Amino acid sequence: MRTSLDCLPCVIKQAVDSSRLVTADEKVITDIMQTIFTELAKFDLSLTPPELVQTVHAIIRKHLNNPDPFFNIKKMSTERGLLLAKEAVTAIDKAPNPFAVAVAFAIAGNILDFGMKSVWNEEVIVNSFAKAENQASLFDDQVIGELYREIKSAKTVLVLGDNAGEAVFDRLLIERFPGKAKILYAVKGSPVINDVTKTEAIESGIDKVAEIVSNGVDIPGTVISKCSSEFVELYNSADVIIAKGQGNYETLNEETRKIWFLLQIKCPVIAKHYNYKVGDWLVKCINGSS
Amino acid sequence: MRTSLDCLPCVIKQAVDSSRLVTADEKVITDIMQTIFTELAKFDLSLTPPELVQTVHAIIRKHLNNPDPFFNIKKMSTERGLLLAKEAVTAIDKAPNPFAVAVAFAIAGNILDFGMKSVWNEEVIVNSFAKAENQASLFDDQVIGELYREIKSAKTVLVLGDNAGEAVFDRLLIERFPGKAKILYAVKGSPVINDVTKTEAIESGIDKVAEIVSNGVDIPGTVISKCSSEFVELYNSADVIIAKGQGNYETLNEETRKIWFLLQIKCPVIAKHYNYKVGDWLVKCINGSS
Repeated sequence: MRTSLDCLPCVIKQAVDSSRLVTADEKVITDIMQTIFTELAKFDLSLTPPELVQTVHAIIRKHLNNPDPFFNIKKMSTERGLLLAKEAVTAIDKAPNPFAVAVAFAIAGNILDFGMKSVWNEEVIVNSFAKAENQASLFDDQVIGELYREIKSAKTVLVLGDNAGEAVFDRLLIERFPGKAKILYAVKGSPVINDVTKTEAIESGIDKVAEIVSNGVDIPGTVISKCSSEFVELYNSADVIIAKGQGNYETLNEETRKIWFLLQIKCPVIAKHYNYKVGDWLVKCINGSS
Repeated sequence: MRTSLDCLPCVIKQAVDSSRLVTADEKVITDIMQTIFTELAKFDLSLTPPELVQTVHAIIRKHLNNPDPFFNIKKMSTERGLLLAKEAVTAIDKAPNPFAVAVAFAIAGNILDFGMKSVWNEEVIVNSFAKAENQASLFDDQVIGELYREIKSAKTVLVLGDNAGEAVFDRLLIERFPGKAKILYAVKGSPVINDVTKTEAIESGIDKVAEIVSNGVDIPGTVISKCSSEFVELYNSADVIIAKGQGNYETLNEETRKIWFLLQIKCPVIAKHYNYKVGDWLVKCINGSS
């Protein structure tokens, strides 16, 4: 999707909030904002919102002279994810349909998003995970069944990761994948906000259940035209693709191949544009037969 | 007060929302936003938020090739104010202390602010006016008494207007001023957002109760160093100054002369900075003896 005018104040707010998470120096943040405004004056709104965020966070990293300012926040998110995962495993394993409940927890985990500061709220997190068990029974059985069967018969499944912390729940879901497919887990090529890179994927135990692959870029989403050729080959050849989170939805939802999206709707612009409500949980397939 | 980093996303949002109120052409708004970003890259945050808004709205007017894009909105606000004033007059005249109730309605009128689109909400407006009668009994009697006595013994009272629509309630208050002071009502030198200019002041009946004077500039507040010398003379020589609304508070609250402020707190940055809550009603005097 293209960037909406409504994305502009939100991205500016995220830039201020994100900068404050990693520096208390308001003078530095003022310099950051001035550089961001200079770039925004030239930005092409036909690009996706994650490409706008890529530009903004490249500026933040450069001004802070820090290639990974969210390193500690990602570490904390993974630790929080690992702690929450213990209860999730119990709930998944006692469920009549563990796969469906694992899908629900993978979506619940999408709330672990320090990139949207307003979403990182203990009450919201607790509610998100409390909702997961019940949510599984609200999924369309046919949709979950189709995803299950596709994974079961696939030779390769490519999971597109989203945030640190959330990746722990992606691992729980991958552990419940049926069949014998080769599982690839795509991470960002280099750090951007709190997105999962190889480091956090390993901390989440992804390396034990999948081959971790890089998409080659620092966009908090997946813009195929900008990914590495190695990644594009994997993308084109994978039998099943599961894309986690809103950034991947914003950048891939107009693609022509079949893709499964698992996410929570966190943004009013996307909600309005696609007729969802903020807070909706999505198991959505594009370009499917059904 | 200086512009906070938190003002930036809010001003960007106001610019998008305001532009949409006056044009449906998203291409034009994109051009407007790009010019605004170019200017913001150079903006000095030690200036006040209304000076930032001045810059933003000068760009909007220039791109729209329209010196007063909010002309119709101001007209509508005045008409709405005149309608609401009928009930207000009844409430004021039956009150044991009509002056205090008129002060409350002058603050209630501060909610008529199309400049902050999010505030222009029928329910909020109705609640604001419903609150006025009761609010008068919650004022500090001593504070209201002091304002009353100062007006009564003044030779000149200068009222600094704020928004169209709100001006109708400023007129109701001026009509209840005690004493024989000469009343001056200051308007903006030229249109900016929905701020009251001479045209809307006359439509509100201000010319029947006060002499309308221009402050000479298009800042949605009162920055003394940028006002016309004629206005500065009036400002310095007035016995009593009553400043309406948040824009005047943001630009005058660090001045050294005595000023009475009547306003509603609409912004979380100001609320936090000065230890108020959004929605608070203020009758506040700076540099007073008490």
